[in-house]
Amino acid sequence: MKGLLAGWERLCAASKILRFVDINLRGIGQVMFQNNPLTGLLFLAAVGWGSYVGGMPQVAIGGLLAVIAGTLTAQWLRVDAAGLASGLYGYNAYLAGLALPTFLAPSPLLWTYVVLGGAVSVVATLATANVFKTWGVAALTAPFVLVTWLLLLATFAFSGIDGSALSYGNEISPIDPAAANPLQVADFVQGTLKSISQVFLKANVVSAFLFLAGLAVSSVAAAVFALVGAVLAVITAHVLGAESTLVTGGLMGFSPVLTAVALGAVFYPPSGRVVVYAVVGTVFTVIVQGAMNVALTPFAIPTLTAPFVLASWLFLLPRQHFE
Amino acid sequence: MKGLLAGWERLCAASKILRFVDINLRGIGQVMFQNNPLTGLLFLAAVGWGSYVGGMPQVAIGGLLAVIAGTLTAQWLRVDAAGLASGLYGYNAYLAGLALPTFLAPSPLLWTYVVLGGAVSVVATLATANVFKTWGVAALTAPFVLVTWLLLLATFAFSGIDGSALSYGNEISPIDPAAANPLQVADFVQGTLKSISQVFLKANVVSAFLFLAGLAVSSVAAAVFALVGAVLAVITAHVLGAESTLVTGGLMGFSPVLTAVALGAVFYPPSGRVVVYAVVGTVFTVIVQGAMNVALTPFAIPTLTAPFVLASWLFLLPRQHFE
Amino acid sequence: MKGLLAGWERLCAASKILRFVDINLRGIGQVMFQNNPLTGLLFLAAVGWGSYVGGMPQVAIGGLLAVIAGTLTAQWLRVDAAGLASGLYGYNAYLAGLALPTFLAPSPLLWTYVVLGGAVSVVATLATANVFKTWGVAALTAPFVLVTWLLLLATFAFSGIDGSALSYGNEISPIDPAAANPLQVADFVQGTLKSISQVFLKANVVSAFLFLAGLAVSSVAAAVFALVGAVLAVITAHVLGAESTLVTGGLMGFSPVLTAVALGAVFYPPSGRVVVYAVVGTVFTVIVQGAMNVALTPFAIPTLTAPFVLASWLFLLPRQHFE
Repeated sequence: MKGLLAGWERLCAASKILRFVDINLRGIGQVMFQNNPLTGLLFLAAVGWGSYVGGMPQVAIGGLLAVIAGTLTAQWLRVDAAGLASGLYGYNAYLAGLALPTFLAPSPLLWTYVVLGGAVSVVATLATANVFKTWGVAALTAPFVLVTWLLLLATFAFSGIDGSALSYGNEISPIDPAAANPLQVADFVQGTLKSISQVFLKANVVSAFLFLAGLAVSSVAAAVFALVGAVLAVITAHVLGAESTLVTGGLMGFSPVLTAVALGAVFYPPSGRVVVYAVVGTVFTVIVQGAMNVALTPFAIPTLTAPFVLASWLFLLPRQHFE
Repeated sequence: MKGLLAGWERLCAASKILRFVDINLRGIGQVMFQNNPLTGLLFLAAVGWGSYVGGMPQVAIGGLLAVIAGTLTAQWLRVDAAGLASGLYGYNAYLAGLALPTFLAPSPLLWTYVVLGGAVSVVATLATANVFKTWGVAALTAPFVLVTWLLLLATFAFSGIDGSALSYGNEISPIDPAAANPLQVADFVQGTLKSISQVFLKANVVSAFLFLAGLAVSSVAAAVFALVGAVLAVITAHVLGAESTLVTGGLMGFSPVLTAVALGAVFYPPSGRVVVYAVVGTVFTVIVQGAMNVALTPFAIPTLTAPFVLASWLFLLPRQHFE
Repeated sequence: MKGLLAGWERLCAASKILRFVDINLRGIGQVMFQNNPLTGLLFLAAVGWGSYVGGMPQVAIGGLLAVIAGTLTAQWLRVDAAGLASGLYGYNAYLAGLALPTFLAPSPLLWTYVVLGGAVSVVATLATANVFKTWGVAALTAPFVLVTWLLLLATFAFSGIDGSALSYGNEISPIDPAAANPLQVADFVQGTLKSISQVFLKANVVSAFLFLAGLAVSSVAAAVFALVGAVLAVITAHVLGAESTLVTGGLMGFSPVLTAVALGAVFYPPSGRVVVYAVVGTVFTVIVQGAMNVALTPFAIPTLTAPFVLASWLFLLPRQHFE
């Protein structure tokens, strides 16, 4: 693996085009905190497969378009070279590019939206990073969430863009207990794997394995925490009585997966205390996911990865107690 | 009083268990900014009485369970010794432990919720304190509000926990003027006293006197500002035409009471200017309470002490103009 | 012009009353970032004309009352002399004083509300400035938005104040495409000019020219960016399919106008890159305006200039990339 990456690095050093490809692949890898072009390539394949099978090729295309727009914007904004090279200005753009065609119908304006979303997510990355570096904490996917929420909300005000997969605003009421029927073992497995693939807005088991492979080639610990986080999330959600279709579709678990990886394998040095802390953070993220599903009901927009961002900020801000 | 406290302090110095009790009592006292175990004990009695009379013993038990969970979590997180000893890691946990059984039906999952709420409120305290120390301002009860809002909102998504005392989401519309009927003198007295006891989510006159006694043994100024704040809040709410049942139930006044104590007797050195400033802040908190009651109508959750937090941050952030 | 201003400055130096007038005029000018008493006078005339023609004299009176209350509060709070002299403690108060009588029915309590709004907006200015100076970014009109939102929301809870021009809370749903009918050339012109006058909550073409004149006497660049921003906003809103009555009434354009002036002519040194950046920021502000119109539908309150504040913070926080 190391030889492969070293060879690729030599090729990139010699070619501006390959370097640009490298930056974008690393940007895709950074969705799960990995500064690794091979990870990015496997994630790209996972998204491609999930989009193709789901009959939504526009999602994979949107992601690519947005990450390229983001990287070009970052270069135009003269961001720091190290951050750019490691893909830190790409992942929010990539996610925005996946999310917009997931919820909006294809049209020329949608593609303008995707390019604008990719570009503005870089501005938002710089803005958020500027604020949060005050406390030594990363911006995480907050720029993606903020920009995409605004772009999605606005579609209700604009007749030119069709929010085909968005619902209408609804009043909040408790779920029907019958919707939380007991899960079979197969449901648990499915829910676990889809919790991983839903980080990229895909409900696909094959994609899940590709995502895990992408993590493992860069960091085995990250892959382990992703899987453990997904298992924990599915169990917690089920015990609390979440809607079964949400659990089995991976929709209660993608934020907890990100929290588990962030707390367990990225931002804190490994230790027994950190494992306990990451487990509590992951369980709490399931509750935050439930809370935000409810809170956004009147607004008719999805949480995206906001539960991960909120819970992880909460658990990362006291970082001096783990250093 | 001083001799009593000195004796207690000697006992605590000699016993780990009594020290632990001391920390938790001070944590309860810190709900109204008092680092004093006797204050904590009187507050505990007030809550106990109010819970017993109201037929809700689970509220008093929830508070105790959560503050203990919070203190243990703080020790595990190795927080600063001075802050721990003065109860700064207990008051948010205690309030979360009172609020959850107030709004949710008793069940095994509720008690898990209470322990988790107590523990995570400490994480949230560290996180919020880290952010707000940038501007020399305290976290106040923001950690309690944030964690409890999330836990309450989530119950709409989980069939395992029953939000028995939460309403459903509603559309916003102006109140019926008939609901703001003129108050009798007895209503004013009741509203004033319950504004004090509602700081701890209790509508009980005897408890109110115990809370005032708890304040007075630690700081007469704090007791005076609590009482004056409550009177001001009830008058302001009535003049503006708030719903009478809210005013007489103390539900328009508990946040203003906290603002009055915080601005008038805790964070600013006493002066005539500070008194004027605290009065304006207290009156404005009544408006913020009204505004947040409205803003949370679609979300079907109570404001908790968020109006106090928001108004007090607003009036504490310009603190260099009073130092 | 310079001679005129120098003469006025000599008069102010000799008279405490004229200095007070000067501070208030500059405060009004600062609504569009101009530290210039003549600008303030022209803005005052524009608001007066628009209020008179619109049959709402209480709006012009409210603005004056609030800016005076704000300036007196700032003096009482002993704010920094330079900021006070340049009107930085007046513009949020002035806007609050225009907004409250625009949405609420005249009554004795309304005027109390206006004075309180003017005074508290100064507290909020100090608070917000304290927070945002951490990142070298201005508070913009956030204090006005925050204080006015709270005061407006609270009217639903208080029968003593009548939110006569506020709607009720509504559920979110997409707009009717028929509401976005094609605009005629005259509509474009009207929408552009009213986008400028709506910065001060006025839909009036004559006022728009007075506002442009007020800008031009202080900064020709600011006037140009205001006009170009308005044109851009109207075109963008129309292309996206916004409701025609909103576009022609200037209600999609006032926030973008402020963003255009802020990014293009105030906070960044002029350059080609800055022009491109300001254009993207202005277009994005139209989308934020659409998004916030939608997001506030359940809350039954207007966005005020929040879309400008949010978008401009986003585009101002990465400021080191343009310095």
